Amino acid sequence: MQGERTIVGPVSTKLLLVECSDRAGLVHAITGILLRHGCNVTSNHEFVDAETRRFFMRTEFTGEVNDAAVEAETKEKLPPDAAVRLCAMTPRRVVVLASREHHCVADLLVRHEFGELNARLLAVISNHSRLGKLVERFELPFHLIPHDGLSRQEHEGRLLEALKRHNPDYVVLAKYMRVLTPEFVREFPRRIINIHHSFLPAFMGAKPYQQAFRRGVKVIGATAHFVTDELDEGPIIVQEVLPVDHTHSPQDMAQAGRDVEKIVLARALKLVFEERVFLSGNRTVIFD
Amino acid sequence: MQGERTIVGPVSTKLLLVECSDRAGLVHAITGILLRHGCNVTSNHEFVDAETRRFFMRTEFTGEVNDAAVEAETKEKLPPDAAVRLCAMTPRRVVVLASREHHCVADLLVRHEFGELNARLLAVISNHSRLGKLVERFELPFHLIPHDGLSRQEHEGRLLEALKRHNPDYVVLAKYMRVLTPEFVREFPRRIINIHHSFLPAFMGAKPYQQAFRRGVKVIGATAHFVTDELDEGPIIVQEVLPVDHTHSPQDMAQAGRDVEKIVLARALKLVFEERVFLSGNRTVIFD
Amino acid sequence: MQGERTIVGPVSTKLLLVECSDRAGLVHAITGILLRHGCNVTSNHEFVDAETRRFFMRTEFTGEVNDAAVEAETKEKLPPDAAVRLCAMTPRRVVVLASREHHCVADLLVRHEFGELNARLLAVISNHSRLGKLVERFELPFHLIPHDGLSRQEHEGRLLEALKRHNPDYVVLAKYMRVLTPEFVREFPRRIINIHHSFLPAFMGAKPYQQAFRRGVKVIGATAHFVTDELDEGPIIVQEVLPVDHTHSPQDMAQAGRDVEKIVLARALKLVFEERVFLSGNRTVIFD
Amino acid sequence: MQGERTIVGPVSTKLLLVECSDRAGLVHAITGILLRHGCNVTSNHEFVDAETRRFFMRTEFTGEVNDAAVEAETKEKLPPDAAVRLCAMTPRRVVVLASREHHCVADLLVRHEFGELNARLLAVISNHSRLGKLVERFELPFHLIPHDGLSRQEHEGRLLEALKRHNPDYVVLAKYMRVLTPEFVREFPRRIINIHHSFLPAFMGAKPYQQAFRRGVKVIGATAHFVTDELDEGPIIVQEVLPVDHTHSPQDMAQAGRDVEKIVLARALKLVFEERVFLSGNRTVIFD
Repeated sequence: MQGERTIVGPVSTKLLLVECSDRAGLVHAITGILLRHGCNVTSNHEFVDAETRRFFMRTEFTGEVNDAAVEAETKEKLPPDAAVRLCAMTPRRVVVLASREHHCVADLLVRHEFGELNARLLAVISNHSRLGKLVERFELPFHLIPHDGLSRQEHEGRLLEALKRHNPDYVVLAKYMRVLTPEFVREFPRRIINIHHSFLPAFMGAKPYQQAFRRGVKVIGATAHFVTDELDEGPIIVQEVLPVDHTHSPQDMAQAGRDVEKIVLARALKLVFEERVFLSGNRTVIFD
Repeated sequence: MQGERTIVGPVSTKLLLVECSDRAGLVHAITGILLRHGCNVTSNHEFVDAETRRFFMRTEFTGEVNDAAVEAETKEKLPPDAAVRLCAMTPRRVVVLASREHHCVADLLVRHEFGELNARLLAVISNHSRLGKLVERFELPFHLIPHDGLSRQEHEGRLLEALKRHNPDYVVLAKYMRVLTPEFVREFPRRIINIHHSFLPAFMGAKPYQQAFRRGVKVIGATAHFVTDELDEGPIIVQEVLPVDHTHSPQDMAQAGRDVEKIVLARALKLVFEERVFLSGNRTVIFD
Repeated sequence: MQGERTIVGPVSTKLLLVECSDRAGLVHAITGILLRHGCNVTSNHEFVDAETRRFFMRTEFTGEVNDAAVEAETKEKLPPDAAVRLCAMTPRRVVVLASREHHCVADLLVRHEFGELNARLLAVISNHSRLGKLVERFELPFHLIPHDGLSRQEHEGRLLEALKRHNPDYVVLAKYMRVLTPEFVREFPRRIINIHHSFLPAFMGAKPYQQAFRRGVKVIGATAHFVTDELDEGPIIVQEVLPVDHTHSPQDMAQAGRDVEKIVLARALKLVFEERVFLSGNRTVIFD
Repeated sequence: MQGERTIVGPVSTKLLLVECSDRAGLVHAITGILLRHGCNVTSNHEFVDAETRRFFMRTEFTGEVNDAAVEAETKEKLPPDAAVRLCAMTPRRVVVLASREHHCVADLLVRHEFGELNARLLAVISNHSRLGKLVERFELPFHLIPHDGLSRQEHEGRLLEALKRHNPDYVVLAKYMRVLTPEFVREFPRRIINIHHSFLPAFMGAKPYQQAFRRGVKVIGATAHFVTDELDEGPIIVQEVLPVDHTHSPQDMAQAGRDVEKIVLARALKLVFEERVFLSGNRTVIFD
């Protein structure tokens, strides 16, 4: 079934990703370089953060070019603080961390199987055995790394070891229910994406649906965000909500939560894996 | 233009509103009473809160009955903690409190003018002069009660005096930007409705759109709720959201907020003024 | 993993489902019967269609009763046109028909695996081989019944044979792309549910996303409905939409369509399998 | 109150609007021209329609420039089929046509009063007297032009005469319930915006809510679109929906329709009046 996967964009699609402090003439300069190298620009987005005066640009193009030369020339023409990246639109290498809940992992397995994410799932790692059978159904590696009897450092050490063997571009927390230490997070800067069980910044702590039920909310939400040192405070990628009412028990709210979580996570991952998400301080700039 | 107002339900529609602790046979008992009195039930809703075992029922009916007799008989047949109310589906008497923002007040004035709320607006009271002209355009009384140079008690004293002259069933805070004291709130128990500038419980404090912008949210919400002693903690009636993204400035988010606030407030008021909202502890039970 | 399935309601939950022409005292009569039999009503919904004067009622209750006696007594007390059904809240027996598209079938397989539908999936039948591997991953029977070289009657004959072997309560068309004959539909009256590729009644014909793209729509929808003799005209159960814009190619619109289709179908099936959906002419009455 | 109106962008904000057949180097060429003239680009959007290979670009900039010179130079550097427009971000001159329904007109009057549209409302013209009082409350001209006893040509002649006296940039049909002839439409090419009572292309004919009720839909929508020769077939600008269910009478559906119509129309007008909407065949390209 792997052979059937749809490819996102033609094989030869490339991306030029730029961010730097704003000044006059940036778009003109960058498009000039691509023009001289004979690139055919198929899509182009720019944005200037009015507050920080920071410039962001994502350009999709085709054409046989010397990637290193284009990247170097772009860097040369831009302000010294510029971050420039030229890369191919190839499937991103991804490892998923999960705990006991199935809905996000199952949704990712199905989308992966049918080529709906621009990603190659390398493995699922879990601190519980519950999802092993599901992952094996899709013929992907499942690593059980229980945390019982281990210190946080020991457990994260084992996680890291397993992760690094797969050398992922991104790490996805698909309802991984343990807090990661800042040391762990720093190993994958801007490369860990989490799905959070609420419409952040509401209900940040434990038992969110019990909290939501007690508060009598009329909407249940979910938030996909990058993970940073500060718990639940990383840049938000996607947020959506579903309506609920007084007839919903905490369990019904949890089911609504599962439905919205899996959609929100899949949308966020598609955006990230197609390199459509930039970070501007603690906010995201998304070119969709 | 008053003559053109559509009437919600036929003039003779009445409501029987019941809440009490649950026990077997309540619906059977209540419908039996209405049946014996020759009422024609046109709509009926019940709900039992699974947690508190409290029973709620709203029945719409037509028919010439002795209201006091039906109410008394219902009370007699129900548990001693029962609250029973029989009332006509007539427009509720309403006073609006506002400050400087126009969007909610303007929306209510238009809906009132064309009979879309089951309400009679008696007056708008404000601590600022800005909305005076707008209210006068609709030929309704506008009372300016500034707070400058007054203690909170003095200012609330003047508000209360003006309010009581109109003897309202409900008081609507349509972007009234001052905190009310518990003493004031207790004058209108379960009868003050507020529109809050966010998807509660997120962003409870001041400058919500600046907060939302900084946090980089992707959704802007609004919450209509009953006002209780605890600020921003009263039972929620309606919540909705609109999507935003990185191109929205704090001002754009505020505009999105205004659009969703006026819709949420109007929906909540329609529900309350048609007596579709019951309180179950700090949650609402809504029969729509 | 079957053992982990959550049960919808306690094992002993039963349903009394009633529809008949409206007259005074129906709720009183029915609740009286349940009261006398010692049933404990946990949830109750009624509705009267104002146009047709038809009465609908769904009651959930617990308690050890003689089902046949309650059903018979209810029937006796109601108008002669009454349809009365007393049944247990047990998982419904379901066969899925599909063609080449995976998204709805995969979503149902995952929800079934983790007990999120009140259903037991008996088999997937398809006229294409493409989904065979997916179904087998979940250890469910997959019947390939190709239509090539067969007349419509011959093909439907084979489908029917396979279906009847499983004796399903409901047949789900999860992107089954062939039109069923009225003869086939009549074999499962009110028991076939289809997911339609648009916000009915728009885009009823073929290539809906190409049509939607050409028309430049800003919203993509999906509709779950009962199948009747008239193609795409059966009673609607659930409809929802997702926003799209000019940057969406027909392929992107199709992806948005897949995302909304699978959610809409799952919601509709949960409602149907919990017996929350009544038919009132060509419309549905839904007690959720 | 006019003095309080917020200004959309600083007074000196200008727009360069370009569309032409696509070829390499367009963005580079256009940004080069603006750079040489010392413009400060504050926002820039481009899009290439993959199907028609047509290029669209909207650039906001500030700076004292010779408008005619920039426009001419841009035209010179682009393909011969290019349409180029340089204009200031000043309020658009707008006349509203209405019939008997108040909700859209009232919403526009309020938004205009408080400066939420980038528009100056010049007058409301109606074939009915019903909205006269409402318009006068806001001190705007109301022209009553009844159609009784007039041929379509005669009536449209009078409309045209009144319209041309105001010399509007745009004509808004805010629930104007008469079909306009192609001759009339051609007087304002791409400059008439209509709000349609449904989620087009469903329910195109008369009595849409009766139709929607009969079909048992679960969602009510509205569509804002440009008016072209073909009734209800012009390019769509905004579409949104609200959920409904079996408890909604046709009247309730109409109320939901009014709520969504006024929001959809206001959003569309804001986009059009800020020149964010381009036409690509029968579809819109929207830079928001």
